[in-house]
Amino acid sequence: MTRLLVRDLAQVATPPAAHPPLRGRALRASTVIENAYVLCRDGVIEAVGPMRELDARSVGDVAELDGRGTSAVPGFVDCHTHPAWGGDRVEEFSLRAGGASYEELHAAGGGILSTVTATRALGEDGLRARVDRHAAWMLTHGTTTWEGKSGYGLDRETELASLRAIRTAGGSPTWLGAHAVPPEHPDADAYLEFLLAEVLTDAAQLADAADVFLERGAFDVAQARRYLEACRANGLALRLHGDQFTESGAVPLAVELGARSVDHLEATGEAGTRTLAASDVVGVLLPASALFLDRPMPPARALVDAGAAVALATDFNPGSAFTESLPFVCSLACTQLHLSPEEALSAVTVNAAHVLGLAHDRGRIAPGLRADLVLVAAEDWRHLAYHLAGDVVAHVVQAGSVRR
Amino acid sequence: MTRLLVRDLAQVATPPAAHPPLRGRALRASTVIENAYVLCRDGVIEAVGPMRELDARSVGDVAELDGRGTSAVPGFVDCHTHPAWGGDRVEEFSLRAGGASYEELHAAGGGILSTVTATRALGEDGLRARVDRHAAWMLTHGTTTWEGKSGYGLDRETELASLRAIRTAGGSPTWLGAHAVPPEHPDADAYLEFLLAEVLTDAAQLADAADVFLERGAFDVAQARRYLEACRANGLALRLHGDQFTESGAVPLAVELGARSVDHLEATGEAGTRTLAASDVVGVLLPASALFLDRPMPPARALVDAGAAVALATDFNPGSAFTESLPFVCSLACTQLHLSPEEALSAVTVNAAHVLGLAHDRGRIAPGLRADLVLVAAEDWRHLAYHLAGDVVAHVVQAGSVRR
Repeated sequence: MTRLLVRDLAQVATPPAAHPPLRGRALRASTVIENAYVLCRDGVIEAVGPMRELDARSVGDVAELDGRGTSAVPGFVDCHTHPAWGGDRVEEFSLRAGGASYEELHAAGGGILSTVTATRALGEDGLRARVDRHAAWMLTHGTTTWEGKSGYGLDRETELASLRAIRTAGGSPTWLGAHAVPPEHPDADAYLEFLLAEVLTDAAQLADAADVFLERGAFDVAQARRYLEACRANGLALRLHGDQFTESGAVPLAVELGARSVDHLEATGEAGTRTLAASDVVGVLLPASALFLDRPMPPARALVDAGAAVALATDFNPGSAFTESLPFVCSLACTQLHLSPEEALSAVTVNAAHVLGLAHDRGRIAPGLRADLVLVAAEDWRHLAYHLAGDVVAHVVQAGSVRR
Repeated sequence: MTRLLVRDLAQVATPPAAHPPLRGRALRASTVIENAYVLCRDGVIEAVGPMRELDARSVGDVAELDGRGTSAVPGFVDCHTHPAWGGDRVEEFSLRAGGASYEELHAAGGGILSTVTATRALGEDGLRARVDRHAAWMLTHGTTTWEGKSGYGLDRETELASLRAIRTAGGSPTWLGAHAVPPEHPDADAYLEFLLAEVLTDAAQLADAADVFLERGAFDVAQARRYLEACRANGLALRLHGDQFTESGAVPLAVELGARSVDHLEATGEAGTRTLAASDVVGVLLPASALFLDRPMPPARALVDAGAAVALATDFNPGSAFTESLPFVCSLACTQLHLSPEEALSAVTVNAAHVLGLAHDRGRIAPGLRADLVLVAAEDWRHLAYHLAGDVVAHVVQAGSVRR
């Protein structure tokens, strides 16, 4: 039995319990305990409360972490990342700064397919090293649970190697075979035929979920439905990239198929907002991607006010969101999406855990849940969002172990 | 004699020499040396070049810093910060996330004056501790030279204590007595009378420059001219906050008075752009402030294309830009201001050094300049801007000493 006492915290802040995902006023109904402790046993939270209620008997044979000057929030859950890639896209980034658009760069041979070439060239060991490095970056910024997508391999070998590398690095793998159409296939339908015949069975053994890029120039509604239905029949939970550049039918399809989430939503209009709000599908908002591409932000306030359940994620990837920092995403949520710090916190913890099917075990500070904590380097936990691009993570506890 | 050899750097990138400040195409005329070294002696750069030209004799009695996997750029120069303050503004940040405007919060008793109350309560030791902490944060993000403004005291004692604390922490102090009108004075003219009669003489002994907040609700052109002319007569260089919310006459005044810079410019139009471009006044752009307040970005591309000299700074302060990270500002420059990484680098190094009158000694990697280096944690130096909110600073060398 190993025990860890995190003591003398200025605050402990946590979202409330929820099933289904938090929405409406519940999104901002955080609980804050001042001058508090968190006691962990065997990787699980045993107790949390004010210091004055700490049972002196428990202070004997326990490791201690000094929380003075800091505040604790749940370990962050990044429910949308693309960590399995080689090369980088810094040249494209520089060209875009000079005025080229994402779609223009894609059409000019940059974009996703340039990363596919670099990723295929890595080999399994190289791919694992890159995913491990990206996972270490995430942990540094307080992410204790993360989903990682394949989708830069687009061939059997590299897609499966990506899923293995993500699992090995501690992530929840999502098979994003339908990310783009690689050049060796004549069209999207032929590529889907290949994916479902040659890759699906093995990918379904390795992954927890499947995802598709539903967008002009990628896959349309009929193709996305075909891919996702086949994946669901093989036991995978469903995700969709939708409404990033154009409103493309992703929201109704996500609701129809009972997907866990529909992600991006920068182009979602009023009808899509109402449809999503009437469902249990979580809208995953990715403001760092909108910032990186200098595109409109998703209509977060409208979605929340309509009653939709939302999560926030980094969209970590080399082309459109090269950031692993969920604290930074919280800053964008408060300054660009007009969400409160409390709403942002719920969106990067409990609701993100719902997207991964892990809300029974992660995303809150409560007895019985996995002991995942971020100690924010300030006495008011809201500095997490307020201190823009600052070093706000003082310590990270994952499953009861101090990892940073 | 102490020597430091930074060796096996993947790249050394530096802006070109310039007097007056860089503008136009020169802003992006960076030099990049691949597989390079930088040799420092007694805090000064002695030599820089490709590894193959490194004289073997110099490798004897020298400390070494392994640059493998990193790239070197000049230490960053933050030419616009407000580091001397108490309390925080996280409650105001949270309210603004819920929809209140900056001017509404100011009118409601929040804003600058709430920080003035907290700053006056600190006392000189408390103020020094805060400035030291903020300076340490800046160094962590690669800032080796910085300007710091007073302006949260607004009484004789706290203004002078702020300037002393900034100098002690290693910064270049700017007297921003004319930041806001404190409640104990009936109006702006009476407050200026007090500043010039009771504070100016001593402030001029402590500071390098003077600054004024020229804006609706703060000080108008006539008041700013009066303040700045008196400061100039006492030997101070001149700066202006101008055109942040409204185009207020700051650009013509800055040119008329021969100011070193005019800062903000979010509201500057075509005439102001032409006026600035025809002068040697540097336009200091503060995109983190525009992001933090969700306000329009400054017209950076138009300014650069018109031939204006520009610098970039954090505007570090608790109310409108709680960030100390110039790498993050470079990311905003590339994604929001449509500047190239090369232009952003010049704007946070050599041109920022010009604003502080230090371009003879800082802002480039060249023999004879102070040995201030940032080792970017990537083989391509442009990751500095590309890796959004990432931990891009591997090492910091300041005056030849490894500080991080």
